[in-house]
This record gives sequence, structure tokens and C-alpha cells, in this order.
Amino acid sequence: MMAMPDLVTEIVIPVSAIIGIVFSLVQWFIVSKVKISGNERTGGRGVNDPLMEEGINDQQIITKVTDIQNAISTGASSFLFTEYKYVGMFMTLFAVLIFLFLGSVEGFSMKPQKCTYTKDAMCKPALANAAFSTVSFLLGAITSLVSGYFGMKIATYANARTTMEARKSVGKAFIVAFRSGAVMGFLLAANGLLVLYITINLFKIYYGNDWEGLFEAITGYGLGGSSMALFGRVGGGIYTKAADVGADLVGKVEKNIPEDDPRNPAVIADNVGDNVGDIAGMGSDLFGSYAEASCAALVVASISSFGMEHDFTAMCYPLLISSMGIIICLITTLFATDIFEVKEMKEIEPALKMQLIISTALMTVGIAIVSFLALPSSFTIFNFGAQKVVKNYELFLCVAVGLWAGLIIGFITEYYTSNAYSPVQDVADSCRTGAATNVIFGLALGYKSVIIPIFAIAISIFISFSIAAMYGVAVAALGMLSTIATGLAIDAYGPISDNAGGIAEMAGMSSTIRERTDALDSAGNTTAAIGKGFAIGSAALVSLALFGAFVSRAAISTVDVLTPKVFIGLIVGAMLPYWFSAMTMKSVGSAALKMVEEVRRQFIEIPGLMEGTGKPDYDSCVKISTDASIREMIPPGALVMLTPLIVGTLFGVETLSGVLAGALVSGVQIAISASNTGGAWDNAKKYIEAGVSEHARSLGPKGSDAHKAAVIGDTVGDPLKDTSGPSLNILIKLMAVESLVFAPFFATHGGILFKMF
Amino acid sequence: MMAMPDLVTEIVIPVSAIIGIVFSLVQWFIVSKVKISGNERTGGRGVNDPLMEEGINDQQIITKVTDIQNAISTGASSFLFTEYKYVGMFMTLFAVLIFLFLGSVEGFSMKPQKCTYTKDAMCKPALANAAFSTVSFLLGAITSLVSGYFGMKIATYANARTTMEARKSVGKAFIVAFRSGAVMGFLLAANGLLVLYITINLFKIYYGNDWEGLFEAITGYGLGGSSMALFGRVGGGIYTKAADVGADLVGKVEKNIPEDDPRNPAVIADNVGDNVGDIAGMGSDLFGSYAEASCAALVVASISSFGMEHDFTAMCYPLLISSMGIIICLITTLFATDIFEVKEMKEIEPALKMQLIISTALMTVGIAIVSFLALPSSFTIFNFGAQKVVKNYELFLCVAVGLWAGLIIGFITEYYTSNAYSPVQDVADSCRTGAATNVIFGLALGYKSVIIPIFAIAISIFISFSIAAMYGVAVAALGMLSTIATGLAIDAYGPISDNAGGIAEMAGMSSTIRERTDALDSAGNTTAAIGKGFAIGSAALVSLALFGAFVSRAAISTVDVLTPKVFIGLIVGAMLPYWFSAMTMKSVGSAALKMVEEVRRQFIEIPGLMEGTGKPDYDSCVKISTDASIREMIPPGALVMLTPLIVGTLFGVETLSGVLAGALVSGVQIAISASNTGGAWDNAKKYIEAGVSEHARSLGPKGSDAHKAAVIGDTVGDPLKDTSGPSLNILIKLMAVESLVFAPFFATHGGILFKMF
Repeated sequence: MMAMPDLVTEIVIPVSAIIGIVFSLVQWFIVSKVKISGNERTGGRGVNDPLMEEGINDQQIITKVTDIQNAISTGASSFLFTEYKYVGMFMTLFAVLIFLFLGSVEGFSMKPQKCTYTKDAMCKPALANAAFSTVSFLLGAITSLVSGYFGMKIATYANARTTMEARKSVGKAFIVAFRSGAVMGFLLAANGLLVLYITINLFKIYYGNDWEGLFEAITGYGLGGSSMALFGRVGGGIYTKAADVGADLVGKVEKNIPEDDPRNPAVIADNVGDNVGDIAGMGSDLFGSYAEASCAALVVASISSFGMEHDFTAMCYPLLISSMGIIICLITTLFATDIFEVKEMKEIEPALKMQLIISTALMTVGIAIVSFLALPSSFTIFNFGAQKVVKNYELFLCVAVGLWAGLIIGFITEYYTSNAYSPVQDVADSCRTGAATNVIFGLALGYKSVIIPIFAIAISIFISFSIAAMYGVAVAALGMLSTIATGLAIDAYGPISDNAGGIAEMAGMSSTIRERTDALDSAGNTTAAIGKGFAIGSAALVSLALFGAFVSRAAISTVDVLTPKVFIGLIVGAMLPYWFSAMTMKSVGSAALKMVEEVRRQFIEIPGLMEGTGKPDYDSCVKISTDASIREMIPPGALVMLTPLIVGTLFGVETLSGVLAGALVSGVQIAISASNTGGAWDNAKKYIEAGVSEHARSLGPKGSDAHKAAVIGDTVGDPLKDTSGPSLNILIKLMAVESLVFAPFFATHGGILFKMF
Repeated sequence: MMAMPDLVTEIVIPVSAIIGIVFSLVQWFIVSKVKISGNERTGGRGVNDPLMEEGINDQQIITKVTDIQNAISTGASSFLFTEYKYVGMFMTLFAVLIFLFLGSVEGFSMKPQKCTYTKDAMCKPALANAAFSTVSFLLGAITSLVSGYFGMKIATYANARTTMEARKSVGKAFIVAFRSGAVMGFLLAANGLLVLYITINLFKIYYGNDWEGLFEAITGYGLGGSSMALFGRVGGGIYTKAADVGADLVGKVEKNIPEDDPRNPAVIADNVGDNVGDIAGMGSDLFGSYAEASCAALVVASISSFGMEHDFTAMCYPLLISSMGIIICLITTLFATDIFEVKEMKEIEPALKMQLIISTALMTVGIAIVSFLALPSSFTIFNFGAQKVVKNYELFLCVAVGLWAGLIIGFITEYYTSNAYSPVQDVADSCRTGAATNVIFGLALGYKSVIIPIFAIAISIFISFSIAAMYGVAVAALGMLSTIATGLAIDAYGPISDNAGGIAEMAGMSSTIRERTDALDSAGNTTAAIGKGFAIGSAALVSLALFGAFVSRAAISTVDVLTPKVFIGLIVGAMLPYWFSAMTMKSVGSAALKMVEEVRRQFIEIPGLMEGTGKPDYDSCVKISTDASIREMIPPGALVMLTPLIVGTLFGVETLSGVLAGALVSGVQIAISASNTGGAWDNAKKYIEAGVSEHARSLGPKGSDAHKAAVIGDTVGDPLKDTSGPSLNILIKLMAVESLVFAPFFATHGGILFKMF
């Protein structure tokens, strides 16, 4: 079969990215037609719409909605700017470190060096690799930052509009929330692809035929993306959960006022938190996964037979998969927005689930097309010294197995976190006997939910690894992430709906509207858990691929568990996720305690607050969350960023390999169980509140003992599912990509401690 | 230096064991002098003692105490017999499996086979190894069973006597509880050593100079001990926690009656549980660790230079270490019973801590003596094909590093679980804002408490592994377990004190007495956590040693993480502890729910129960716990016992190696964090109840909101610290020893699935 000419590749990738961006803008335009400002009286559909239910089309409410939205948006922007300022300093420092470490490999010499893999050829000097790695690191960090920031902007733009549409019907509200999610999904996916593509092409001007150096430098992009994501997730996660836990503990538990009640001083901080944690953090996170998976595939491919032969189209296979992904997801989105219509609450979850199924099914065909057009029918991959001949249909299998494993993980996550199935219902039932049994059952559920995803990951690793070694694993990760635009869309949909509900409550809208947004939100909890499932599953594959690339680059041939150096790395690595979780959970706990004190103080000191006549001081709560998250994100961030540097420098590459493997196999379990436990508790509580079945009503209503027990579970789950859990997948990826970037340094100067003795 | 003649070895080992047994009987005799039966009016110190406080020296109370003790003892015996009946069937079946699997290695041929390691020599037939392995498996199981049973008998004998002595002073009560712990500690340690020693000598009659076969068959002893321990821990753990959680949920939370109140129908089941779970289960568990560590060291040593040369004294080095341990622990015990005297409550914890320090310090000297007398000054160890020359003082270092790592783990555990330090106090403080923050802080504490123990384990592995490969790791484990008699003594002390308090409450003794037993119990929670720390730390070392022996026996030279077969094993292995925990936690939760329903039913249906005029139906609660634990212990037990068989047979030794490594590095973390989290919650609650500091009083008293939050944490912690956590260390050891026993089979017939494709 004829391979696709390079010119086509050069056109297809940027064009797909641009289509994605345009599609995203179109969705934004449609969302923007929902007017919220009270001043736009004519033309907009928002205010004088005949569909609107009576009595709630009140100018006062609309003004309130606008005010609240502004407060949330301003709060989120101001937090992100503060966060970016501190992280920016850290990143600059780290960029200097990268340059110094990598530059020192050949003593800052400007002379060309012998290539690592292509024998007898000369490659660009190590100093150039150091400089370009630093640049691509910064580019990755900035792209990640921009992704997170835009995501937040879109979400805060969309939340109030979702509320407004919820006045009409649940279906209309769903469409707005979903379209807004799509804006974010497509913008991020396309932006990530485009920046990576442009960077490769620009670097190529300098590197020419030295593809080893080129793609080694490109891995800095993944490192930058993931480092930014780490701080985004941890900082945002602490922010949102300090506010959420603090607001709930006083509001729901002590004062018995509903969630998102405007009398609660922490309520704005809570809503800001959804946007900086779940949206900006998650946006950065999935962008990071995508960037790393691409980099892992590229760096491994650069030493394959087609890499050696400089077959640009084959080399760009990972990017072509992503390009195809954007097109497929675009078609998939139309199914939710134009082809099928959500009319009732119970149709929401199936509609979102259909998105996953449709995108996966279509993408399978898409992968097949790309595999047959872009790849040579047979090529050679290097596997730690040995060679492996791979056929193009075999590589298709690798990508497809990753893609479908993602779907399975998604479904299992749904099963364990949606209140439509027995696991969450059992947890809700255990609330009969109080909070203790609820916590016990919830933890057990999380542990159990690990089993099938791990088998799915193990099987896809086994197949892709056996077929095409680390290249296979890397493209399997890309397969799982190929439908990222849809994944992000349904993931971002969750916090948007959550905020929409918050705004409805704060603006004093009727309970009908709150019920509708609650239904959207409950589905959102499940999709958020699914999104985390994808993020974790792909992180496992990505880190393994990066780990393999690292081992290859560091020139060690085996990572034998039964050597002391490796084994101590393995057991210490398996401990790191615990250390990290301890830090983040404690941070949330302490910040929440401060928040509780502040909220209690306001209820005592501000006259008329409880009666609704006094106005709470929202800003002081925002400040507590901001200060806590900025201060507390540094230690866990430093733990993750410095561990590979310290271990590699002092103990060398074998021990570092052990650490990476240990952190990977242990972290993935805690991450899955933490996020599913949290999701299940949240939905167990919603199950009791909604009371849609005989069983659910027997546990409720709100305020019953069982409901109180459920609220405790939900609160415990908050830091698990939104701070520790989702940060852990960054931990494992980031340590792997960092090791890969620093591999040339470790290979020459690492292991000082063992060399000394 | 002259090595010790074999004749001395032949005498020293059994004599030490007998000294241990005699010492244990002496302690029992002293404890038995405390009379509890109301009929013995003369001579005994119990009844008419002038020291006794007024008003409580009441014949009615003494009769009550006797009745309660009988009820607990009968309940415990009857449960253990039921448990042993079912486990016995399982064991018989498994024994048949062992014989069939191992017999099939050479097609049940009676002909001698070539030796595996000693080239050109002929060894006993595989069928003989199969038969002797089966026999030693059964012997190990029976010894473990007897250990658990005797432990339970001693504890139920001692608990009421501790209560009686608590009427006089806290110091007298302490001595009784501690002496009783010592009875158990010495009996188990000495019995384990003696049976193992006799077995080796009997087997040697058949095996003669075939030491490879001899010690291969002996490993069955470790497998038997651990299999029994698994069921003991899981079954006992479910029993005790179903009763405890069930009793607390209705009693403390709903009915607001104190712990161990005789009106609570689940109270007898709860007290029985302490004896079958914490005592019998733990006895079996630590015996299993000891048996496995000895077997691991022996099997590795059998192919060392002194093994080849048939140097019996050097070969018995592990047993000599244990013999020395018994003598050292005997001296250590005298410090607590005769040299120092505990007079006040606050002296209890330091006294127990001193036991650890003294035994460790003395044992260091003891190890040095044994190492120089028993070992050749230089010898060769085989390390996966390579050879390693080891000096005797280097091997001393291996044992010592394990011993001291154990002490460090003990101290760290104490720091994180005793309410004398800030971690537990912080957790107590977080109860101000309710159960949710308590749970968050408790989980974070558990995660954090993993860090230093893992470093301690990693460092001792690194040192011992580097010095003497797997033999070094095995003797490091033995070092950690060498003070097992003292460790068990202070560990058993905990549940005895807990029961003593229960009996005081049920017999209606005054609050002064209850305060004394509470102080004993609080120290007991910490020592229980320390005991678990030892068990887990030693399990990590033991499993690694067994794992190494398995790899060696299965004739694979490296366990390379970066091969698909090993990696999938690693990630699935790391998942197993979660699967196992999910099962056990859910079992406790479900059984507790049933218990709650039964207790509630009795409070409703039995007239006058709450007022103390009606008599509760204790037996129905005992039956619920018994049925639940018998039914629920099978699935997790089967998971652990069958996984190595299935993986080895279907996927082969590489994947099985991955599973073992993954389960080890992941399981050890969960085990430590679960048991410390649980211990911390329990003591945070006790901290609030005792109210000894200004801070503690600000949180209390009993029944305050903070105290209620603390009770919820304590209840969640119950299954973590007494069911899942301590069972996990058996999981990792057992899978390793089982793999080793079945290694000959896997090496010849394993990996069917991969062979097929």
C-alpha cells in the first residue's frame, strides 16, 4: 500500500487542529447567545422567552445571576494569576536547572557529539539539546497554563448561562453545559496538537537530520505541560476542597442551611474552587497526559527504522492519530447537540455515555485508516538492544487496545460511581447505621473498583508491549487519549453544572430549577469520575512508555527487581504516593479547619447573617483558600519534582528505575480507588437527596440521620477525589518524563553516592 | 576462631526451647495465684486481701466476674473449634494439592533425581519431596493452630485476673496482664523453634546428605504456618470487628450506653472477638512469620558453601539466633516483672517501651556471640548464579540491621499511634469540626506514618542484600523477629487489658477500676500497633527472601520489570492487596450491619433490657459473628491461596515473580497505613475520654460532639487495624512461601497459557 506523502501530513495536522479550534469557537458563539446580563432586553432569548416558566423571569434574579457570575469569574482569575505568579517563579528556576544539568553532560561544550543510537553519525552538541529542552519545557508549561486559564474562562462564562437555560428545561440546560464543555475539550486538544506540531517544525530547522536530538529536546514539552499540571491540580485541588469542606461543615452540618446558600460566607470560594480545581487543574492535567504520550511515542519512534530513514509521515503517526481524534470527536459531539435530544433528567447519563461509545467506535475506524495510510507496512522497533519487526496492522491493534481499554475503564468507573447501580446504592444503604459504616463501605467500594481497570490496563500493556515494545505502549496511551476532546467535554460539563446549581441556589431560584441542575450535577459526578479514570489509565500507560524510553536512553539493559539498588527503589517508589497523599489530604484538612473558623466567626459576628439581612464577607474566605493553596502546594510539588533529580543524582539510574516502577504500580491503585470512593460518596448523598426510588426515600429526606451520615462520607471524599486522587496520576507521569529529560545527565554523572563507596 | 561443635548445637537449641517453655509455665503459675472463683475463700490473695479498696470486695461481683470469664472463654473455644473445622477441611484439600502438584514434577516417579544445585550428585526423588513437603505443611498448620489456641486460652484465663488485680492498683494489674502476655510469647516462640528443630532432625533421617531436598521439604512448614495464620487473622478479624462495630454502633452511638455495658447484647461477642482475633490470630501470624523467616534462611543456606559441606552448626545459624532470642527475652522480661515496678498509669507505656529497647540492645550482643561461634569466618553464598563471599561479622551486620530496623519501626509506630504525641492529638483536635475532618486527618496520618518505616525497611534490605544476597535478607528478617517473645508479650498484653476493662464494666465495678484498665488498654493500643509494625516489617523482609529463594529455585536469572510478562504481574500484584482489603472491609461492614439489626431487635423486643431488668440474648450475637466470619473468610483466603497457583500454572514463573514483587511493595504500605490509622483513631478517642490535659478536656467529655466524631473514626478504624491491615502482611508472605513450595512444579509445568500460543 502506498504511504501518504509527507506534504499531506504537513497539511492534515495543522488543518485538523484549526478545524478543532474553529469548531470550539462556533460552540462558544452558540453558548454566548444565551444572554444573562439584565441590560440586554431585546434580541436575546434569555429574558423574554415565551418558553420561560412563570414567576422566575424576574429582573432581580437575573441581575443577581450576573453579579454572582462576575464574582466567581473574578475570584477564579485572581486566584489563577496569583498561582501562576508563584508557579512561574518555580518554573523559571526549574528551567535553569534543566539547562545546567543537561548542559553539563558534555561540560557545556559547543562541539557536535557522537549520536547515542545511530552509530558513527554525529549529532548536535549536548548544549543545544539543553537549550532546546529548556525552551520546549517552557513552551509546554505555557501551553498548559493557557489551557487551564481558557478552560476556566469558558466554564465561568458558561455556568450562569446553564442556570438561565435551566429555567426553560433540563434539556436546554444540558445542551449549554455540554457545548461549553466541548468548547474547552476541542480548544485544548487542538491547541496542544498545534503547538507541538509547530514546535517540532521550528526545532527541525536547527536539528535537520538529527532526529535523536530533536525528539529528545521535544520531551521537554511533556515535562513542562505536566509540571504545570501538577501545581494546577494540587493548588486548585486544595483551593476547591478547603472551600467545599469548610462551607459544608458549617453550612450543611452545623447551621442546617442548604448547599450553595448565599448566606454561607464560603460559598463564593466554593464555586470559584470548582473552576480553578476541577476545570483549570483538569485541563492542564489532560493536556499534560496528551503532551507526554505524544512525546513518549515520538522519542521512541525516533530510533525506529522509519525514524532512522527520516520518514516524516510515519514519524508523525502519533500526531496524525490525534488529528483524526479531533475530527472523530467533532462528529461525536453532533450526536449530543444536534442528532439526539435530551428531554428528561434520566436521559442525561445515557446521553453522555453514548458520547463515549460513539467516539470509541468511530475512532476505531479512524485509527485503522491512519495506521494503513501513515505507516510502512512493516518496520523495526528497538527494544532495549533487541529488534522487533512490527506490521502496521499490529500497531493498529496497539492503539485500538488502548482506546477500548479506556472505554472499559470508563464503564467500570460509571458502574461504581453512578447511583443507578447497586454499589453506590449499597453505600447509601449503609448510612442507615451511621457515618462509620458509610465510610467503611465507601473505602471498600473504592478498593474493589480497582480490580477491573487494572486488568484492563494490564491486558493492554501486555498486548501493546508484546507487539511493539515501548512504542506499542506509547501509542496505546495515545489511543486511550485520542478521544480526549470528547472526554474533556463531558468532564468539564460536570463542574459547569455544579456551578450552575450553585448560582441557581444563590440567586434564589425555585426548587424546580435546583432539581434540574442537581440532575445535571449528579451525572457530572459520574462523568468526572470517568474522566479521572481515563486520566489515570492513560497515565499508567504513558508513564510506562516514558519509563521505557528513560531506561533505553540511560543505557541500562535490564531493570532487575532482584538487585538491591532496584528493589529499594521499588519499595520507596511505592511509598511516594502515600507520602504525597498525606501532604495533600492534611493540607485540605488544615485549610478547611481555618475556613470553618472563619465561617463560624462571621455567623457570630455579622448581625443578621443567618436571617439573610446581613451580608457575608466572601472575600476573606476566598483569601483563606488562596493563601492555603499557594502555601501548601509547594511541598507536595517539590516532592514530586525533586525526587527523580535527587535519586538519579545520588543513587543512579537503576534505583531511579525502581522508584519509577514502584510509584507507577502503587500510585495507579490509590488514584483509582481514591477518585471512585469520593465519587461514590458524593452520589450516595445525591441518591438519598433525590429520593427517586422507594429505597432512596426510605433513607431520606435531607436532614435525616442517614443523610447526615452521607454528608460526612461526601466530605471525606472531597479531598480524596479532587485533590489527592487526581494529582497522583500526574505524580507518576511527571516523575517518568522528568527522568527521561534528565536521562543524559544521570547516565553520565548519576549515582554519586554509590560511586563514592 | 574455633567454630562451635555440632554436638553443642544439638544441645543448645532444644535446651533453649525448653527453658522458654518452662519460663512460660512459671509465669502461668504466678498468674494462676490470682484467684477469681468465689468459692476459694482461704489462702488466695484475691478475696480477703487487705490491699483491696473498700466496697468493691463484693462476693456478688466476684461471681459475676467468674461467670463473664467463663462465657468469654467458652465462646472463644467454641468459635475456634468451628473455625478449625472448616479450615481443617481446606487444609486437607490443600495438602492433597501440594502432594499432587509436587509429585507430578517427575511424574510420580520413585527414582532418585539429579540435584538442582549440587551438580553431578543424586538427590531424593521428587515424590519424596512432595510427601515430606505435605507432612511439614500439615505440621506447620497444626503448630500454628495450637499456638493460636493456647494463646486464646491464656488470654481468657488472664483477663479476669487482671480485672481482679486492678482493684488493688494499676501496677498489680499491669504485672498480671504483662506476665500473661509473656506466657503466650514464650510458649509460642519456644514451641515454634522446638517443632521446627525436631522436624528437621526427623526428616534428616530419611534425607541424609541431601540437604537441598531436606530444606526444600521444610519450607512446607512455613506455608502451613502462614496458611493457618491467614484464616486465623481473617476469620478472627471479621469476628471481632463485626461484634465490636455492631456493639458500638447501637450501644455507644444510638443508646448512649458505655462500652462493654452488660445490657448490650453484642458485648460478649465483642470480648470473645478480642481473644479469637487479636490473640489467636496474631499468635498464628507471628508464628507464621517466624517459621517462614527460618525456612527462607534455611533453604537459601542449604546451597551455600557451608550447606554443601554439611556444616550442621552453621546451617542451624537461624535456629541458634532464635534460641539466643528466647534467652535474651527471658532476661528482658525480668526487668518489667521484677526489677522495675510500674506504680502509676503514666509509667505503663515507658515500661513497655523499655522492654523493646532492652531486648534490642541485649540481643545485639547475643547476635554477635552466635555469629562468631556458629559461622565459619568466611563462606560463600550463591546469588542467582553469581557467588558472594561473606565474612561472619558481615552476617552479624545483616541480622543486627534487621533487629534495629524493627526497633525504629516500633518507635515510629508508637509516635504515630500513642496519644502522648502530637499526631494523635492533632487527629483528636480535628474532631472539633466533626467526623469528616477526623477521618481525613486520620487517613493522612496513616499515609504519613508509612514514610520512615519504609526507609528503615529499604535500608536494611539494601545492606543485608548487598552483603549476603537473599541469605542476608532472610537473616535480617530473623533479626527483626529474634525478640519475638518480648514482642508477642507486649502485643498480647493489649487485648488482655481490653478484656479486663470489659469484664470490669460488665461486672459493675467502680469507675476507678475502669480508669485503670482504660490506661492499660490505651497503652495496649499502642503496643498492638507496634506489634503490627514488627509483623509487617518482618513480613516485607521475609517475603523478599522467600521471593528470592523462589526465583533461584525456579531457575530464572533476572526479574526484569521491562518485560511484558513481569510488568503485568507487577501491576496486578500491586492490585491484590486492594482486592483483598475490599473483601475483608466489606465483610466486616455487612456482618456489622447484621449485628446492629440484631442488637436493635433485642432492645425493642426484650422487655426491660435498657433498664437492666431484662437479660440480653448474647448467644444470638455470638452466632452472627461466628457465621459471618466462617462464611466470609473463605473468599479472601481463597484469593491469596489460589493466586500463586493460578498465575504460576497459567502464566509461568516470570509473571508470578512480578505478582510477588508488586504485592510486596504495595501491600506493605497499605498494611502499615491501615494499622496506624486505626490505632491513632482509637487512641484519639481515648485521649478525649481520659481528658488528662487542658487540650483533651476542651474536646470532651464523653458524649460531646467532638467525642462522637472520635467514636466514628474509631469505628472506621476497627476493620482497618484489626482485619484488613494485619491480614495483608500474611498475604504477601504467604504468596511468596507458596510460590517457593510450588516452584519445582512451576519450573517444569508452569506457564501453560504462554506455551499454548
